Amino acid sequence: MKKAAIISVGNELLNGNTVDTNSNWLQKRLLSVSIPVVYSCSVVDETDEIKNAVEYVLGKADIVLITGGLGPTDDDLTRQAIAEFLNTELEYHPDIYEKIVQFFAAINRPLAENNKIQAYLPKGTSEIPNALGTAAGILYQDSTKLIAAFPGVPSEMQQMFDLYVYPKLADLNKDSFIVIKKIKCIGAGESVIAEMLGDMMVRGRNPLINCTVDHGIITLHIVAQSNEKKVAEQAAADDLQKIQTILGSLIYSCNDQSLAEVVGQMLSEKKQTVAVAESCTGGLIAKMLTDIPGSSKYFTYGWVTYSNDAKMTQLDVDKKLLERFGAVSSEAASAMALGAMKKSSADYAIAVTGIAGPGGGSEKKPVGLVYIAVASSKGVKTERFLFGPRNRDFIRLRTSQVALNLLRLNLCD
Amino acid sequence: MKKAAIISVGNELLNGNTVDTNSNWLQKRLLSVSIPVVYSCSVVDETDEIKNAVEYVLGKADIVLITGGLGPTDDDLTRQAIAEFLNTELEYHPDIYEKIVQFFAAINRPLAENNKIQAYLPKGTSEIPNALGTAAGILYQDSTKLIAAFPGVPSEMQQMFDLYVYPKLADLNKDSFIVIKKIKCIGAGESVIAEMLGDMMVRGRNPLINCTVDHGIITLHIVAQSNEKKVAEQAAADDLQKIQTILGSLIYSCNDQSLAEVVGQMLSEKKQTVAVAESCTGGLIAKMLTDIPGSSKYFTYGWVTYSNDAKMTQLDVDKKLLERFGAVSSEAASAMALGAMKKSSADYAIAVTGIAGPGGGSEKKPVGLVYIAVASSKGVKTERFLFGPRNRDFIRLRTSQVALNLLRLNLCD
Repeated sequence: MKKAAIISVGNELLNGNTVDTNSNWLQKRLLSVSIPVVYSCSVVDETDEIKNAVEYVLGKADIVLITGGLGPTDDDLTRQAIAEFLNTELEYHPDIYEKIVQFFAAINRPLAENNKIQAYLPKGTSEIPNALGTAAGILYQDSTKLIAAFPGVPSEMQQMFDLYVYPKLADLNKDSFIVIKKIKCIGAGESVIAEMLGDMMVRGRNPLINCTVDHGIITLHIVAQSNEKKVAEQAAADDLQKIQTILGSLIYSCNDQSLAEVVGQMLSEKKQTVAVAESCTGGLIAKMLTDIPGSSKYFTYGWVTYSNDAKMTQLDVDKKLLERFGAVSSEAASAMALGAMKKSSADYAIAVTGIAGPGGGSEKKPVGLVYIAVASSKGVKTERFLFGPRNRDFIRLRTSQVALNLLRLNLCD
Repeated sequence: MKKAAIISVGNELLNGNTVDTNSNWLQKRLLSVSIPVVYSCSVVDETDEIKNAVEYVLGKADIVLITGGLGPTDDDLTRQAIAEFLNTELEYHPDIYEKIVQFFAAINRPLAENNKIQAYLPKGTSEIPNALGTAAGILYQDSTKLIAAFPGVPSEMQQMFDLYVYPKLADLNKDSFIVIKKIKCIGAGESVIAEMLGDMMVRGRNPLINCTVDHGIITLHIVAQSNEKKVAEQAAADDLQKIQTILGSLIYSCNDQSLAEVVGQMLSEKKQTVAVAESCTGGLIAKMLTDIPGSSKYFTYGWVTYSNDAKMTQLDVDKKLLERFGAVSSEAASAMALGAMKKSSADYAIAVTGIAGPGGGSEKKPVGLVYIAVASSKGVKTERFLFGPRNRDFIRLRTSQVALNLLRLNLCD
């Protein structure tokens, strides 16, 4: 089986300025053609460092993908490093230069003298065309290895990889297949889900079931491996079905959708609408719902009623209710949801009120206490949660996810 | 000058599941004590791979920081790898085991047999205590090198690093100083700011001025280097003052604050309040304002008036105005801001309306067209922006940043 390594080039990746996301993107692409990444590294903008890294990783991998260091300035040295590694020199390509000239003409900017260096490639390599910029990529291939270098700009790298390198890699690796299915769940902890799945989670099993957790979202990966594509596909499909049967409505997506996307799709299909009334999440639930293109079809009204005043004047929450039970109470959440539904004439309304912290908590009402209400024609249902003690961002995000999930379960009914 | 390298251990860092953010965090901490990171790599969960990485990076660096691989399961092999690198064995530490027992007792969970491995350290190394979990860190130091291993969980790693390793590193590197100042700007492009700063931006200058761009936010880093702390500090302070004079109100923070923090602080100091009425940003501005702890002091009301109906019923926007000018118009933005100010009795109101895309654009009103209004006792001021053609997330984030900036400039007046 072919293996890959990734080299990211750039001082900014080592001085805390930039988090390298290219590697992660490439890893996923490679895995989808069953090529595991066995090593990745970030190196500074120096010819020797880049060249040494290429030599070093070729001890572990057959495929080396390099990002960064193909710009026009003095500290862009990937071109030179590959030439030195191949023990050859840079060669001028007038056709590449012509494309650079045209690129600058199209965006109506002057061509700088130093852009000419971008028309050079190490002898014996070929161009990976870049439709979105002036930095051509470099491709080298012989009987034992493939080296491909891309600019560091993610949009350019991704397009170049997908058009010119991905098909080659898929072709290289015809003797081994990995099929991955992704399942996203909410509503139970990692250990509960592991217990429910039992033996399926055992290490070394094929398919392997991996589990990651992020703010209450549990993502399961089914990774099936075989020499035969059909066998891997069948094994993954079988496991997917088993897990769907076991976890039921804990699963909200098998297509890598967000909760907001799932809820939005359900509302669209039913031609129904939702309104939100937020206190502690301060607009985050509305933001998540409206992240989705076309959300104006089902999302109409939102309120961020941060003060008691706002709850009373905008959502008709009774002053006496707030005085008696407080703004962070089941009663307040219910009243907010009912008020929002009435004012907006939406089919559903979500309301949240809670203490996101770090201040404002008490023994009776600690940081992390949140009430979430979902109102519909069937009435209003309110639940109490304790998401603390965690930080403000965590509590706000968790509250929003759980609120969207309660709406989802309501829509399933 | 001492140099550092970082090794991140874990299959999840190489199969597209997790983006390594620990390295970035450590890079910033190291730079603050003038230790540059010259190399970083991610390796799979195998003893040899970890051991080889330690050997390899010690060819480039004196300080090696390792994250991950200290858990209790079979695939946690950093402990073993360091022992093999040091040519020694693992040694049982009853005092560490006692802490693990107490940890499980405190969270009321049963202690598993495999947790015992976490009480072992390579001979000749010492414990880096972990107050937040059961994975003790490992510290090795001799006359030429320092190796420190941490668990991969960011909160545990960060606390352990800051308490036990950071002071040691600061101490090691007393003969060289880097002072960094960070300046955040909004309201002009990278090239305009570079032109304004002229010769200060030249490469190789000391202090070096670095520039990064993120959604319209320009961040300048002044990096001053010297053998003498005072000299570096003075050079950085001088540059900071020069840049402040040149860029003026384009600068919104020299303390790494977000725009929402800066605006919040100004409102707090003036004891004033703000309300927001959002259409295309769908709650994002309210979310950004309420990200800040204590924002309930100055943020009271928010509306997400996504439909025309919501704009009319909630903000008293005139139906005829919407029919005549459309919801995406200067007139609608102004009316929304005035309506929000009136309904909330806030001192300021921000309103935005625009086309976030990808659908909904036309030749006259393309995707990315946004109107932003800021109302105050001085009246309402509305501006027109073209942020497209970009993706939905970009346009929404950019709109929110620019809206907060317009409020900031209004508060400065």
